[in-house]
Amino acid sequence: MSSSIRVGLLGCGVVGGATARILLEHADTVSQKAGVRVDLARIAVRSLSKQREISLPPETYTTDPWEVVGDPNIDVIVEAMGGIEPALDLILHAIRSGKHVVTANKELLSTLGREVMAAADEAGVDVLFEASVAGGIPIVRPMKESLAGDRVKRVMGIVNGTTNYILTQMSETGVSFTEALGQAEELGYTELDPSSDIEGFDAASKIAILASIAFGARVVAGDVHREGISKVTAADVDAAHQLGYEVKLLAVAEIEDGQVAVRVHPAMLPRTHPLASVRDVYNAVFVEAEEVGELMFLGRGAGGPPTASAVVGDIVELARNIKSESRSPGSAYYREPAHIKAQDEVGVRYYVVLSVQDQPGVLSSVAGMFAHHGISIASVRQEGFGDQASLVLITHHATEAQHAATFGDLEQLDAVKSVGSRMRVEGTSES
Amino acid sequence: MSSSIRVGLLGCGVVGGATARILLEHADTVSQKAGVRVDLARIAVRSLSKQREISLPPETYTTDPWEVVGDPNIDVIVEAMGGIEPALDLILHAIRSGKHVVTANKELLSTLGREVMAAADEAGVDVLFEASVAGGIPIVRPMKESLAGDRVKRVMGIVNGTTNYILTQMSETGVSFTEALGQAEELGYTELDPSSDIEGFDAASKIAILASIAFGARVVAGDVHREGISKVTAADVDAAHQLGYEVKLLAVAEIEDGQVAVRVHPAMLPRTHPLASVRDVYNAVFVEAEEVGELMFLGRGAGGPPTASAVVGDIVELARNIKSESRSPGSAYYREPAHIKAQDEVGVRYYVVLSVQDQPGVLSSVAGMFAHHGISIASVRQEGFGDQASLVLITHHATEAQHAATFGDLEQLDAVKSVGSRMRVEGTSES
Repeated sequence: MSSSIRVGLLGCGVVGGATARILLEHADTVSQKAGVRVDLARIAVRSLSKQREISLPPETYTTDPWEVVGDPNIDVIVEAMGGIEPALDLILHAIRSGKHVVTANKELLSTLGREVMAAADEAGVDVLFEASVAGGIPIVRPMKESLAGDRVKRVMGIVNGTTNYILTQMSETGVSFTEALGQAEELGYTELDPSSDIEGFDAASKIAILASIAFGARVVAGDVHREGISKVTAADVDAAHQLGYEVKLLAVAEIEDGQVAVRVHPAMLPRTHPLASVRDVYNAVFVEAEEVGELMFLGRGAGGPPTASAVVGDIVELARNIKSESRSPGSAYYREPAHIKAQDEVGVRYYVVLSVQDQPGVLSSVAGMFAHHGISIASVRQEGFGDQASLVLITHHATEAQHAATFGDLEQLDAVKSVGSRMRVEGTSES
Repeated sequence: MSSSIRVGLLGCGVVGGATARILLEHADTVSQKAGVRVDLARIAVRSLSKQREISLPPETYTTDPWEVVGDPNIDVIVEAMGGIEPALDLILHAIRSGKHVVTANKELLSTLGREVMAAADEAGVDVLFEASVAGGIPIVRPMKESLAGDRVKRVMGIVNGTTNYILTQMSETGVSFTEALGQAEELGYTELDPSSDIEGFDAASKIAILASIAFGARVVAGDVHREGISKVTAADVDAAHQLGYEVKLLAVAEIEDGQVAVRVHPAMLPRTHPLASVRDVYNAVFVEAEEVGELMFLGRGAGGPPTASAVVGDIVELARNIKSESRSPGSAYYREPAHIKAQDEVGVRYYVVLSVQDQPGVLSSVAGMFAHHGISIASVRQEGFGDQASLVLITHHATEAQHAATFGDLEQLDAVKSVGSRMRVEGTSES
């Protein structure tokens, strides 16, 4: 074993650049915590001519990432390129060459995590990925290690900063979704194509990773029922306020009858719930476990320095492992696929607005339809008169299928003109 | 090495009992996560005749803890007795016999942590103590491991559930401190002698432990400037509300000019601060670090099952270590004493109420006195008229000594009848 741990970095953009800077600026702290010197040995970049805020010898850089993963002197590869290819092939090559890997690549892990982890197990190396979920918030390690003696029942997160910024703006200034999206774009909070954030793909990747760890079985992004926030209206947000709720894009994973229910969608949360006060680009993960009860982890879910802080934490763990010839806790959770509960069978609560005739007996026939489908009503309020009459209902727990059937049948009632806005309600003591 | 890890438990009260139950009820999960079977082998109890919710062979129990720490077949000792003696001697004996130790004993660690860790280093064993701070909230491990590549600037916590319950009651129902304390006593939230909670001793122990880890140098309970909540009045809480603040018992540790400032006292926090909405018996730790920015960890800070969840997480880590013949990250932070900043020199902000003469020139002479001592005033508001006239001020940052001198000199002014309530202000963007 050499007297220092040599790190090879793939990608030197927002996260990679911040990782490089921290490894240089905090070199003493990092080496002290690791118990061994940690050197940034090679960096694969797109362009050699780009100005960088760090100062390293020119020979540190290469435009060929294969040179870095193939370098026999490198102990740890940090993959900060993102995307599936060539990240996957590079990581697999690094693993098979006996290198440990740190990655923030949620897209890769939530689709091909099994392949990566199987290769790592075979090669006897570790793949750490704290930064892949909720940026700098320590959540992967606490879930893997601190809660190892507990049983997680539910994970509920605000894990996408862009959508949380948009919903916060809508809530606090009353603007429409489109206006709030425009503000997020102006502030540089969005990707070139904002749909990965807006439509919940990013959140789906993250909750798939968290669900795998929480429940000890593989959940992939494709298992996640996913709805984005583009249909959330200012009126929905206003209605939520009137009921004492906030609208958030929630990523939820829970155990129901031994199956994993996992979904991303906008939801109404009571204002008293700790997640309801998570504002702007902040992320938070709320965990419910049998023994410890409720926990919440809050912080910045994106950005170079926060994400790089998590990457460097993982590098320190690997450096310690190498020095002590030990391994990090295994990746058994990626071995077997989880039993995923069909979304139709998942128990949820709904807020729904019905546009109704202003006449006697309306509530009775509406309530009868809910009862017919086995759904109890938690609260109901009439709003407006005449042509504007509507009923605002919140249901008790019932399956998605029961709700869908009820909403469909309600449309057929003479008393109901249309079934308007509907949104799931989460984080109530009942759920 | 034997095929299972054998655990010896010292104490079977609230935390010890819950630990024993989890080890039995979750035996499969625990063994799977640990990668090796974990057996609860011996338990030292006060009384053999007490009814217990767990079912173990009678020979598991003994009233002699020395029998447990002396048992050569035991690999891990869980100390759940509390207090200094005999816990210290038992732990030292276990360590010197090559056993790893898990403890929730904040009192011991915050006074004699150095002795315990030095013995552990000498013997080559690990002492883990996640449960010693904020019960079930994973905070020790994230601070040690996840933030290993970052630099912590400040830790600010609500780490005592009893006082947070009392302050929440005062804030939400307007009752006095004495009434709220009575309610806490009725609910069983207090110790037989409530002063450890009320006067901030418990919080001081916890912030000493957190400060040691955060800043990499030993902070003991005696280093902590400590003020309790018994002098907080309903009027203070009411005044805080009017200013948009909540009153919380805060434990604060921060780096100032390379020195550690560490204190426990009631403080006003802006309602927009994440700690301000931590209610009832919940605990939360807010961490500010250079790269990751702001993080918060929230959960139940006390109680058997939450605390035991953290204890079992530590047991799993030790079991993995034993199996892989590795060690947990070291305890270097206990080796050298931290440079503690004298409280007089610590920079703080104050809220203060002055009872004043209702006459022209009062504000001018008051403002002049603050300026004379080099303190800027952030806001001032006059309240009442005639005999009831008062000024409510919030200062900008200045040292405790500057504030004390100013308050003393203000008493001498003709325009000032008396210096009334004062309380530190924390969690503002300026601090």
